[in-house]
Amino acid sequence: MPITSAQKSYLAGFLDGDGSIYVRLKPNKSYQYGFQVSPYVIFFQSSKNRKSFESLCSLLGFGYMRERKDGILEFTVGRKNDIKQFLSMVKPYVILKKKQVDLMEVILKRKEKVNNKNDFVKLINLIDSFRGLNYSKKRIKHTLTP
Amino acid sequence: MPITSAQKSYLAGFLDGDGSIYVRLKPNKSYQYGFQVSPYVIFFQSSKNRKSFESLCSLLGFGYMRERKDGILEFTVGRKNDIKQFLSMVKPYVILKKKQVDLMEVILKRKEKVNNKNDFVKLINLIDSFRGLNYSKKRIKHTLTP
Repeated sequence: MPITSAQKSYLAGFLDGDGSIYVRLKPNKSYQYGFQVSPYVIFFQSSKNRKSFESLCSLLGFGYMRERKDGILEFTVGRKNDIKQFLSMVKPYVILKKKQVDLMEVILKRKEKVNNKNDFVKLINLIDSFRGLNYSKKRIKHTLTP
Repeated sequence: MPITSAQKSYLAGFLDGDGSIYVRLKPNKSYQYGFQVSPYVIFFQSSKNRKSFESLCSLLGFGYMRERKDGILEFTVGRKNDIKQFLSMVKPYVILKKKQVDLMEVILKRKEKVNNKNDFVKLINLIDSFRGLNYSKKRIKHTLTP
């Protein structure tokens, strides 16, 4: 069933309220520049609301649910094409996380076009600029392996 | 400007993600049964997002904004008719907080019809059932003044 514009608008509101858009840089020596670049859109919810949270997330038709040890449900969209599709759905309606949506779109495009270390450094700088937009208290300085 | 159905749907999503629906019972001897009954719909946001949060909240045309000492913005809808109007807007779209919306509507109706102590006890029991729906860690047993 195709998702309606009211549902897209709802998801935009839910993203603005509860969602998180970010990119993790995981140190990993098997990658060319020493980091794996992992983009995410994540929603959180108490497992109390499991049924309705599952029905909400199933609107999307992608992503996966897991329950953390503390009882919080985490719904993750992690595949590049799913994230792109999700962002294009909610983009017309998002208010609070407009900048994060735009930044993620730029990062996903740039990621495909990394040809050398200089490109990768620029990508990392873009990713680091998420920290200014999100509420993260951690500020990590990313340094490339030589 | 009248609010569109896409905006109502967005607000439903935002309520499900970030919002809070509850009733405070404030001990107050000047009230007939010893408590003031104060219903609320509240949204929270980092003051980082002040501008876009204000533009979001201004969709409603009611409610008021305040900044807490910890820098969190709190947007409160506290007047009975404003709450009723807000709930009727989002009701068709709400997924996760459906029970809270229904319960608040019942409480607002009952509150108008309290004629005796027995009615008030029933009202308080309804209000206490919010605790089962929301994430509150506090469990207060409300006892009426004799």
